[in-house]
Amino acid sequence: MIENEPATIGDLPTPALVIDRPTFNANRLAMDALLPEDRLRPHVKAFKATALAQLLADDGHRGFCCATPREVEGMVAAGLGEDLLLANESLDVARLGALADRANITVAVDSNATLDAAIAGRLRSVLIDVNVGLPRCGIDSADAGRLADRARKAGLEVRGVMGYEGHLMMVRDPKEKADRVSASMEMLLQASADVGGDIVSGGGTGTCLTNTWCTEIQAGSYTLMDTDYCKLGLPFELALNVVATVISVNMQGWITADAGIKSMAMDHGNPRWEHGDVFFLSDEHITLSPTNINDWEVGDRVRLQPAHVDPTIAKHQQMWLVDGDSVVDRWAVDLRHW
Amino acid sequence: MIENEPATIGDLPTPALVIDRPTFNANRLAMDALLPEDRLRPHVKAFKATALAQLLADDGHRGFCCATPREVEGMVAAGLGEDLLLANESLDVARLGALADRANITVAVDSNATLDAAIAGRLRSVLIDVNVGLPRCGIDSADAGRLADRARKAGLEVRGVMGYEGHLMMVRDPKEKADRVSASMEMLLQASADVGGDIVSGGGTGTCLTNTWCTEIQAGSYTLMDTDYCKLGLPFELALNVVATVISVNMQGWITADAGIKSMAMDHGNPRWEHGDVFFLSDEHITLSPTNINDWEVGDRVRLQPAHVDPTIAKHQQMWLVDGDSVVDRWAVDLRHW
Repeated sequence: MIENEPATIGDLPTPALVIDRPTFNANRLAMDALLPEDRLRPHVKAFKATALAQLLADDGHRGFCCATPREVEGMVAAGLGEDLLLANESLDVARLGALADRANITVAVDSNATLDAAIAGRLRSVLIDVNVGLPRCGIDSADAGRLADRARKAGLEVRGVMGYEGHLMMVRDPKEKADRVSASMEMLLQASADVGGDIVSGGGTGTCLTNTWCTEIQAGSYTLMDTDYCKLGLPFELALNVVATVISVNMQGWITADAGIKSMAMDHGNPRWEHGDVFFLSDEHITLSPTNINDWEVGDRVRLQPAHVDPTIAKHQQMWLVDGDSVVDRWAVDLRHW
Repeated sequence: MIENEPATIGDLPTPALVIDRPTFNANRLAMDALLPEDRLRPHVKAFKATALAQLLADDGHRGFCCATPREVEGMVAAGLGEDLLLANESLDVARLGALADRANITVAVDSNATLDAAIAGRLRSVLIDVNVGLPRCGIDSADAGRLADRARKAGLEVRGVMGYEGHLMMVRDPKEKADRVSASMEMLLQASADVGGDIVSGGGTGTCLTNTWCTEIQAGSYTLMDTDYCKLGLPFELALNVVATVISVNMQGWITADAGIKSMAMDHGNPRWEHGDVFFLSDEHITLSPTNINDWEVGDRVRLQPAHVDPTIAKHQQMWLVDGDSVVDRWAVDLRHW
């Protein structure tokens, strides 16, 4: 319980992002058994909260991935700048070069243009980002060595390679997944041989059981999970809920609660609800069809299970930690925006 | 141009919410011709910016709709509390009753429980929210008079009724739309006869040409529009873009820019892009297939047209006003969260 703060879930202002602390802690333990210490480079994009990142650092994961310059800045401000990787191309990196005396910051580059931005921005080290099959960023593996040479000639340290097999995260069949991740990582290892450096960084929550080729895995969603990741048979369970208040009960068979599209990401589909069907969501509302309409009245709380963790959290200013019905802590979502 | 601020679109930090000011002003004029002054009660949920609301108030629209208590509080703080309607049920209304000396606040109620919250919260006036066919909030029209009597007995002013025909916003056929809105509003007018009061509030951008039954229309999205509303043949044009920076060019035929699901709402589908196809979006990225890959290089800017305005704006801290390529103003999105 926190002084002058809501004591129970029923006291929270809604919609509220609620984290089940025992489940979150179990997810941490499960990951530590799988990928201890530097084998995991947690990705803060998933949870965007330095309070959560601090716990992972305490667990021994001292290096972190960030997706935006703002995330890097926030981690430095929180004293978590021991080894930060901007695992993403950006031209807006001079603001990170300015932090070089306070933190160790490495940025991903995949072209002359992004390398030139890193040089001009006074960054000190880079990873060569290699395309491993996802149609997004990353240099062709055959060209990675050339870019690394160019970086070293400019005086930058080239720490190694990264490659994100994001297109394989949601493959469910273990054999297919293993084969495709293997082929994907073969491209990365070829690039690594040309580039040099110690680091081969890649992977994510969806491939953390499969990807044995990388020296470090870039997972973050495992901490809190969502209904989509829960389909993959991973050793992590759902710790994330959005709690809403029932504001209207219609005896034709539906109830309406005060959490909608502005508080839950919809790109992986509707959230799940344990007590009936999700009818539809609008901006500020969710309409639910309960198994038994007579069980519900205005003022009741509903717990919704989001389908996509990262963009759901990015909609909120704070998350509430709970243990059972008790509210035990509040974390700022302090790494939002750009 | 604003002193010490970005001068052109190319100078903006990205992803950036960009509003074309001439188009926005044309939308204001078109709405004023259609629904002048109190015939429109602009809904701030769409744009969540008091700077924009102030311009609509200057146009003569002095009353506003809000969707959340936070929006009401923000409008009061900005001096726009002349006639605020929380067009939504809430049990968290005592915080609004506390503002009663500084603003005129009316809340929607659709049940004994929400009315009791308004009474306990020292609100002074209510609208009876009537279900007009959308499976969400609203009392059965036959029961509206009873709830109004109960409110008056408790000393509250009952200003009238509201009913939101949200299920009809996107009906495209004009004849079908007119018939269905007519049937929907018949329910509202029956309730109005029982409830009394001057106000019959309803409608939205999607029915603002059709709904001739309400005394006031609750539209907000018309100010900025989105690709979905642009399909309806309304006299408003798209003023809203998300501007992103190209961070990677792949000669296999795609480019990647730094705006994704965290900066654009996906519940109405992908954004549109004028120079080619949208391939897919991920959390921080959009992958685009340009008509001609040779036209593009790292550092170029792309303008994306979001499919759903309200939840897109809710993801951003600020919006930039532009005229041509010049940045002419910056507005805080100061009505976010709950």
